[in-house]
Amino acid sequence: MNNQKQKISTEPYKGVRDFFPEDMFVQNYIFDKMKDTVKKFGYVEYGASVLESADLYRAKSGEEIVNEQTYNFIDRGGREVAMRPEMTPTLARMIAARRRELPTPIRWFSIPNLFRYENPQRGRLREHWQLNVDIFGVKGIEAETEVISVAHELMKAFGFKDNDFEVRINSRKITDYIIRDEFALNEEDGHKIVKLLDRKAKLPKEAFEEEVKNILGDKAQAFFTILNSKNFEEFVTAIPSVVDFCDCKGEVPEDKKEMVKAIAEIRELMASLEALGIGNVVFDQTIMRGFDYYTGIVFEIFDNNPANKRAVFGGGRYDDLLALFGNDKVPAVGFGTGDVIIRDLMETYGTLPKYTNETKLYICLAEESAMGFAQETAQDLREDGINVAIDYSGKKIGDQIKAADKMGIPYIVVIGGEEVKTGQLKVKNIVTGDEQTVADTELAKLLK
Amino acid sequence: MNNQKQKISTEPYKGVRDFFPEDMFVQNYIFDKMKDTVKKFGYVEYGASVLESADLYRAKSGEEIVNEQTYNFIDRGGREVAMRPEMTPTLARMIAARRRELPTPIRWFSIPNLFRYENPQRGRLREHWQLNVDIFGVKGIEAETEVISVAHELMKAFGFKDNDFEVRINSRKITDYIIRDEFALNEEDGHKIVKLLDRKAKLPKEAFEEEVKNILGDKAQAFFTILNSKNFEEFVTAIPSVVDFCDCKGEVPEDKKEMVKAIAEIRELMASLEALGIGNVVFDQTIMRGFDYYTGIVFEIFDNNPANKRAVFGGGRYDDLLALFGNDKVPAVGFGTGDVIIRDLMETYGTLPKYTNETKLYICLAEESAMGFAQETAQDLREDGINVAIDYSGKKIGDQIKAADKMGIPYIVVIGGEEVKTGQLKVKNIVTGDEQTVADTELAKLLK
Repeated sequence: MNNQKQKISTEPYKGVRDFFPEDMFVQNYIFDKMKDTVKKFGYVEYGASVLESADLYRAKSGEEIVNEQTYNFIDRGGREVAMRPEMTPTLARMIAARRRELPTPIRWFSIPNLFRYENPQRGRLREHWQLNVDIFGVKGIEAETEVISVAHELMKAFGFKDNDFEVRINSRKITDYIIRDEFALNEEDGHKIVKLLDRKAKLPKEAFEEEVKNILGDKAQAFFTILNSKNFEEFVTAIPSVVDFCDCKGEVPEDKKEMVKAIAEIRELMASLEALGIGNVVFDQTIMRGFDYYTGIVFEIFDNNPANKRAVFGGGRYDDLLALFGNDKVPAVGFGTGDVIIRDLMETYGTLPKYTNETKLYICLAEESAMGFAQETAQDLREDGINVAIDYSGKKIGDQIKAADKMGIPYIVVIGGEEVKTGQLKVKNIVTGDEQTVADTELAKLLK
Repeated sequence: MNNQKQKISTEPYKGVRDFFPEDMFVQNYIFDKMKDTVKKFGYVEYGASVLESADLYRAKSGEEIVNEQTYNFIDRGGREVAMRPEMTPTLARMIAARRRELPTPIRWFSIPNLFRYENPQRGRLREHWQLNVDIFGVKGIEAETEVISVAHELMKAFGFKDNDFEVRINSRKITDYIIRDEFALNEEDGHKIVKLLDRKAKLPKEAFEEEVKNILGDKAQAFFTILNSKNFEEFVTAIPSVVDFCDCKGEVPEDKKEMVKAIAEIRELMASLEALGIGNVVFDQTIMRGFDYYTGIVFEIFDNNPANKRAVFGGGRYDDLLALFGNDKVPAVGFGTGDVIIRDLMETYGTLPKYTNETKLYICLAEESAMGFAQETAQDLREDGINVAIDYSGKKIGDQIKAADKMGIPYIVVIGGEEVKTGQLKVKNIVTGDEQTVADTELAKLLK
């Protein structure tokens, strides 16, 4: 119909978000809570580029992630590059690079953006930001205790209550023992069982049981008994091959030592969390976590609300990862949580903060000749640490005030010829309607 | 020689940086100064993804940027995606999307990471972070005045003095007039002259003059006279076709109106900056700035130090950019500055901050049995807002103290059986060596 050039879309790329100031406000609120909380436990911030060599992810992540979900491409120099799908490989790379200089325990955190190629849906986007909290150099269960305490503290910082969520823990060593020793499954069947447990919540009960029977045959019933145990001690009792050794007394056969130790670790972890007042902890034998690199305790924080019913935090121990870089193994425990899920949860529980503009005063200009005076007044206030904006739009005063209100700026002052002459300024709080007239030199004191 | 698997490199991808805690500290210092300063002027933060549709950059950036320097690739859905090389197109897209809802003046800032495919060298990396500060909806020179004030204030916030740098301003309208009207060049020659001016500082004087002569022939001498004028008024005098009109009195011919207005704007801008105490401003007819979208005043902040001699900030007016999205034109002025150049400058001028760990107290564990007491003490302190780390390494006390010192944590306390029994804790400042013994319940007060 006309010669107009084709318009460019104002939409962002599929599956990623624009952060308008009110969105950025929530994002910063989330990041600030994360930072303040982890710093309380002595964690220091690190960072890295979103671009990494694709090799970094081939080594140890689940294969699916590298092949189908990673954004990767060949750069102009022929290098295969990936946009990081998770932070742990980058973290391990950095720790490995300075292994000898860094005193342990190393407590590091970061809030990187991560990319996954997937079809966007509620809570699953192509880009999200993820808090990563990791401690290196601690072999004992103190590391898990601390990291779970941090996660628990963070849930409270976001306004969630103990009965809104629960901490679910499991141990890779226990899972491995059950699969390899108790049920003597080969690698393929073991892998199938793990994947099945990971999908358990999403499958109808009958379908799940059917598939277990296909793999385990007549051992399925014993497996269901283990699976249906209501708490950790009942669970232990359901594993005939270790039940006699797991009071940690007497001689333990060599091939059961690791399992017995893993059982003791779960007990110790639950007790030490309890001692710190963290009571909403359950053992959950179905917690798997996706990544292959976990070697010990794995955990999730699970939202109890029927609207979400999903893991908010996930993490665990990964003692072997640094060996990929030719270093010795270094004990490591960490967790991650994302901005999207936290934001969804705050929406569900009504704890989202109300947008506030950090600008304190909006100067409305009644006439152009007052501009110099307005600029100097603003400059003086800024020197006193007050954030001030001036309306240069040339609109009617009423519209300027409306703009301030819409922007969420609490105080306004109108400056025109009269104010320039007398230096007397009428300051109005547009939320309460309160007005006060002061000399320009007294303005900073009033606003502080 | 052995069967060890091939090691993965601990190096980051070429041309991007890892931020170890001491680097992240500087990065956060730079970002915090940026945020605090721009907020004083009423700017609010926005953000977006580093991924954008490649179309966004084809439209208006310099061609070179889209074709040779942009990281772009085809995603699995067949979309051509780019990693943003600059923020302004994203910003314009977002403003265009909410043009009708947003009250003007719109004052927005962001500190995005940007990607360019180029060979890394000092000050030029493949990824850097760039503060972007933009004001929309202001036609008059107040916008330029404000934005340059913000840049100037920021330089001061980083510890630079007025004589360390200068603000260099020019006007696209003036450049266009000289090329199109004064020298009546065709588009190709005009483009050549602009590129030549952009490269002037990097070329030997003779080579530059030779190239100008090749383009301008016998008009070259008049061009050199304009170029060599020492200040703005001398510059104006060197343009015969407007010199008679630029006192802004009397009738101005239609074809000279824009040029006369542009001259008045430069004068007004310099006067209003002067009135705000910003005196280190010069007119520089060679300032071009790379992007095609500038429509009026362009400016740079230039570091005077011979070690750098380069632009630290750059920006200008770009009134037409929103029209790309099918909107009406919206007056816009903005600038950008990068973390790499700011960090280099702080190094040059010795204003880099010294690393400090935000963790206040390091608890050294003398024996494992004291762990519970140590954890509870730490928990109490954290509730009082104090950042506390516990050493779970099991190392000798001397080594634990050394670790605290190396991490930059100022206070330590050693907790063993005796401390658990008495509740009396000896707190030591490892910087000053001062020691003080207090009850565990008094610890928070002492550390605050």
